[in-house]
Amino acid sequence: MESQVNRPGARMTAEMAEQPGVLAALLEQRGEIASSVRALGEPAGVVLVARGSSDNAAIYGRYLLEPAVGRPVSLAAPSLFTLYDARVDYSGWLAIALSQSGATPEIVDVLARMRAAGARGVAITNDESSPLAEEADAVVALGAGEELAVPATKTFLAQLAAFAIVAEALGPVPWDTMEGLPDHVAAVLEGSARAAAEEVGDAVGMIAVGRGYLFAIALEAALKLKETALLHAEGLSAADFRHGPIAIMEHGFPVLALSAEGAAARDMADLEQRLRGRAPLLRLAPDPSAALPIPAGIPEALTPIVAVVRAQQLALEVTLARGLDPDAPPGLSKVTST
Amino acid sequence: MESQVNRPGARMTAEMAEQPGVLAALLEQRGEIASSVRALGEPAGVVLVARGSSDNAAIYGRYLLEPAVGRPVSLAAPSLFTLYDARVDYSGWLAIALSQSGATPEIVDVLARMRAAGARGVAITNDESSPLAEEADAVVALGAGEELAVPATKTFLAQLAAFAIVAEALGPVPWDTMEGLPDHVAAVLEGSARAAAEEVGDAVGMIAVGRGYLFAIALEAALKLKETALLHAEGLSAADFRHGPIAIMEHGFPVLALSAEGAAARDMADLEQRLRGRAPLLRLAPDPSAALPIPAGIPEALTPIVAVVRAQQLALEVTLARGLDPDAPPGLSKVTST
Repeated sequence: MESQVNRPGARMTAEMAEQPGVLAALLEQRGEIASSVRALGEPAGVVLVARGSSDNAAIYGRYLLEPAVGRPVSLAAPSLFTLYDARVDYSGWLAIALSQSGATPEIVDVLARMRAAGARGVAITNDESSPLAEEADAVVALGAGEELAVPATKTFLAQLAAFAIVAEALGPVPWDTMEGLPDHVAAVLEGSARAAAEEVGDAVGMIAVGRGYLFAIALEAALKLKETALLHAEGLSAADFRHGPIAIMEHGFPVLALSAEGAAARDMADLEQRLRGRAPLLRLAPDPSAALPIPAGIPEALTPIVAVVRAQQLALEVTLARGLDPDAPPGLSKVTST
Repeated sequence: MESQVNRPGARMTAEMAEQPGVLAALLEQRGEIASSVRALGEPAGVVLVARGSSDNAAIYGRYLLEPAVGRPVSLAAPSLFTLYDARVDYSGWLAIALSQSGATPEIVDVLARMRAAGARGVAITNDESSPLAEEADAVVALGAGEELAVPATKTFLAQLAAFAIVAEALGPVPWDTMEGLPDHVAAVLEGSARAAAEEVGDAVGMIAVGRGYLFAIALEAALKLKETALLHAEGLSAADFRHGPIAIMEHGFPVLALSAEGAAARDMADLEQRLRGRAPLLRLAPDPSAALPIPAGIPEALTPIVAVVRAQQLALEVTLARGLDPDAPPGLSKVTST
């Protein structure tokens, strides 16, 4: 008999289950994180530095930070610095670099260059003694504990929460409290995405679509499905999807449609209407009848922190249904050396 | 007998053939465009506003403008303004909005909001009397003539060239001259992508991959293949592709790999090495033996302006091979009303 820990997906499942605790612990650090970020002064703008799934977290961060700071927020193009040695004046800017391991050389390099060009640097990382943390003026330690499964789950969720905390520290945010979030995450973990995974079946391609705050989770869901289930899933914004790529729906790929209560809901409902009958539609929504339900009553801007857990469950179950091990996808390793 | 104009792809083919002339005419406006952009003053930063294929042009623009201006360049998240009514201070910034028609309401709206928040506005559009042009402090008129085929070809290439001209106007650029570009485009138009299209065959999925300046063209090639050939093609940066999604190569999807002479070449060569034997590899490169050759001797930063024409040819031929009409893909219209 196989031991519990060697069962395919056992590590990813265990790490997903830690998320309510990881989130609650991070929320307890809120005051401390806010002070260390505020101590860096009011920024003229914010630039986010990341790759891979951290880049998806940064897209969420951008949606929170630009209105909070009230100044432009940009996602860095790391190649501009590492390939082309661009000289850019970042005086007065806040550079926030994300890396779960804190050990991706490219991210450390770009943060160092931005600080040399005048920016104050913040590292959001799970390892507070990592090279990235060493390079920063302030560190947001995710405190998620070691992550052994290759797909980032608890560290990704912690990155999202870190952005919400940093946004709160820097200006107005569109929510009253984050208190209920760990319970919402725990509620999602009580369910499973097994039935939804069956609807995906043996599809080769898939589209994950969201708008506004949930666009980042559409991208992350697609990346997880690619990395673990080897499914050619692509994340798109609902606005861009309607613009052109919707034509490929002719192939009948399943569509994962993510929606929240709020300003983006109408647009998603319109899109779902257009997709009905053209493709198997998996709705991830605050609706008990959705294939991937999430609790109602979550502020739109915080919904990604809960929705991502359903997306993880879907990636896990589709991967298992294909006889693959989500813990160790072929050809991937935990730290990138781009 | 069908008339010439009704032959599938006749319009797209004709509009592609106009590109050397469109490019030469735009380059002749260089001095005038430079004066009108310089008249807006030295920007504290630049924000680019676009959707769809214009957004791919903006990604190229970002790589040129950030080093030229020496200040941060950001790609706007339009939803932040149109869905969430974000209040962001853009004082001293230059907002450059792109829309081929100049009539996409969301783009006009976002430019108006940024100008109200302190930015100077530039419109890059093919219609200098469009609502977008009306909203701007300066207009870069693409002068590409009416575009009748639904896939943007000559207007997209003109957008790329417009960014190169604007970058030259605002600071140092990594090339000596743009003089040779129309001839290079004409040379590419003498060839065809029919043989390369045969290698794509009846694949359902495809990956287009580039790095640095050509990342934008990987995205655009994928978008064109989606829109016209209904192929589930996804554009990825070589750095991100290696990081995780390369796992899906197990399906044997064809890969379009774009490379230029310069800093990104080594990275692309490494990636191609890893892909060999795992997937049909279509190289778009300054190499006569490539499936999709482009002329040698083009500065890396200008290569996208020539490479995009090969990508258009590939989309055209794959579409025709599938018995579809590239001029009028199912379910798409020319102006978006997002």
